[in-house]
Order: sequence, then C-alpha cells, then structure tokens
Amino acid sequence: MMTSVLDVLKERASVKEYDKDAVITKEELTELLDITTQAPSAWNLQHWHFQVFHSDEAKAALLPVAFNQKQIIDSSAVIAVLGDLKANENGVEVYSELAEQGNITEEIKQTLLGQINGAYQNEQFARDSAFLNASLAAMQLMLAAKAKGYDTCAIGGFNKEQFVKEFDVSERFVPVMLISIGKAVKPAHKSNRLPVSQVSTWL
Amino acid sequence: MMTSVLDVLKERASVKEYDKDAVITKEELTELLDITTQAPSAWNLQHWHFQVFHSDEAKAALLPVAFNQKQIIDSSAVIAVLGDLKANENGVEVYSELAEQGNITEEIKQTLLGQINGAYQNEQFARDSAFLNASLAAMQLMLAAKAKGYDTCAIGGFNKEQFVKEFDVSERFVPVMLISIGKAVKPAHKSNRLPVSQVSTWL
Repeated sequence: MMTSVLDVLKERASVKEYDKDAVITKEELTELLDITTQAPSAWNLQHWHFQVFHSDEAKAALLPVAFNQKQIIDSSAVIAVLGDLKANENGVEVYSELAEQGNITEEIKQTLLGQINGAYQNEQFARDSAFLNASLAAMQLMLAAKAKGYDTCAIGGFNKEQFVKEFDVSERFVPVMLISIGKAVKPAHKSNRLPVSQVSTWL
Repeated sequence: MMTSVLDVLKERASVKEYDKDAVITKEELTELLDITTQAPSAWNLQHWHFQVFHSDEAKAALLPVAFNQKQIIDSSAVIAVLGDLKANENGVEVYSELAEQGNITEEIKQTLLGQINGAYQNEQFARDSAFLNASLAAMQLMLAAKAKGYDTCAIGGFNKEQFVKEFDVSERFVPVMLISIGKAVKPAHKSNRLPVSQVSTWL
C-alpha cells in the first residue's frame, strides 16, 4: 500500500484488467465514500450521489449498459458518480446546520440561500456545477482507492440514457462517470501527457 | 508537511486567509502542475489549461474580476483552471505519439480519432467533458499543493465573462474555477458533510 501522497498522485493510472476473485467489502467501500465526500464543493452543496454496483447481479445488470466492457464484472465494485442538477435544494440542510451550531446568523443563512437559489435559475450553470463538483469527488475517490491498495478506472463510455432508465435515476441527477474499483492483475500502463509548458500560460 | 495520503484527503479544507509574505516559486508551481497533469481524462485528451497568476501585477489585475476577494492578492499564486471545449483537437498529437511508439497501429489511431471527432459534434457533450475533466485535474492540484505544505481554495465566485475578456481567453476554453494557493495564517475550518448513507444508493 502506498502511503506517500506524491507517489499516489503520480502513480495512479487507469486499470482495466482486474483480478476477478478480489473482494472489496461494503465497509471498505463506505470508508472510501466517506473520504470521497470530504472533497470541496461550491457553497458546500455536495453536488454528488453515488450508485454502488457491488453485487454480482448489479454488475451484471450494468454490463450491457457499459457496452460489455469486461472491467465492469471483473472489478470488485463499480461506483456510478451522479451530479446533482438541483444542488441548491441541499442548501437548506447545509446552512440550517451551520445556523443551529451558531456559526452563521439566520440572516446570513437567508442571504446565502437567496444567492444560491438565484444562481440555480440558470440551467447551464446548474449543469456545469453538477459536472464540476461531482468530478472533484470522483478524483478524490480514485486517489482514496489507490491509497487503500486498490486500482480504478474512470469510465465515460456507457449509454447514459439507458443508464438513467435502467437504474431509475431521478431527473434531479445526471450520470457523470462510472469508476471501476479492484485489484489490478498487472501494473497499470502509464499514459503520456502533454508538457506543462504547453498546457499553461503564465501571467 | 503531511505525507499520509488518507490524512491529506481527509484534512484538506478550503483556506481563504493567507500569509501575504509567503512565497511560492515558479519551480514549485511548475512541479505542482506537472503532478496535476497526471490526472486522468477521457480518451487522454487532457481537457485542461492553466493560467497562472503569480506576479503581484497579475493578481492585482485578477482582484476585481474575482469580486475583490482578499485571498486573490494575499495568497502566493492563483491558478485559473480552464476547460477545453475542443479537446478532440488534442487527439492527433496524443494518438500520433502512441502510433509512433508502436503502441497502436495507424488503423486504430484513425478509428479512435473518428470516434472522438464524432462525439465532439455534440456541443453539450463537449462542454460537459470540459468541466468534468478539468475538474479532475483541479482536485489533483489541490491535493498536490496540500502534500507540498500549501493550502488552497477552489473559487467559483468570479465574473467569467469579464475573466475571458480581460485575460484574452480563446473561445476554445471555458473558465472552470480559480484556485488560490498559499500558506494559511490559521488552521482551516472543516465544513460539515451530509452522511454517506444519504448520498449513496447500493444496488
């Protein structure tokens, strides 16, 4: 198990071939999700929901929706990361707790909720925010898994319309990505990256 | 400096009050960005670009665009994370390198580029992908900074239209977030999170 942060950040790489016999427990998955939810989010609205495909039956149901990629059933679990298109509706719970704890006044709470609900009148803003904040959590999840000795793969290739229908996803959520989690059968192949000089501009 | 991965993942929190005298060097920022670009991206298209506000002048120019938040000038640097709306155009470079190295055939390269360019005909897909993949890198950046002894804050509150105009952002890119980086003057305030049971569904 890797314990140096920089090693984990540098060495995490996508793994598509997993040990079919490896098991991850519900307790381990819950711990990973607990760490995942420590990711930041705009206004602390926590624009994420996780659908956990853990049982063989659940993974088998997901397989055709994910274009029959073998990693869906060979990995130990697959977590679908959904983005919340109405994350503003979390505002009341998040800010009521802060107000009850005396960290903010009732007036500040109402001002914040007003700003948040105002911003969410814009559908494109809501969608951008869902993808942005759910993806922050997704990266946190992949790194937490690596730190606990698991490998992962972020999967964008799945039928999103079919996913929503098959797994009763409410209209409130949009599927962002699937993440397979398991034990690699061989070391991950490190992919190339464009140089920093090419992807940055200094002001 | 924290070296345990799980500690870093759990303890990173948004810091808005920075030591004005703390300095981060260009070498350190470049190392952070190098680690940042190890984040995964769909088809390895690396849908990110970083505008680095490092000089006092650059941060002063950014200040009004970011609603005069003091952290913009008190932090040691601010990195604007942009998402690439035409990340498909990176495909040729990414896959030509793989083909030259003999990792894929010319035929597979052409098939992949065809699929990628096909997907990018859909503007909503392109925008979702820009936010998604740039945000994976943003989370990686915040954790890399924490691992190197710096604190950060992801900032969604800035005038995006003004940002694009002021800093000559090409139409190819969309501003996703700003990230302030520096030395905290007091420990970060840990914010509350909704419980895992509330944000997950098990199948």
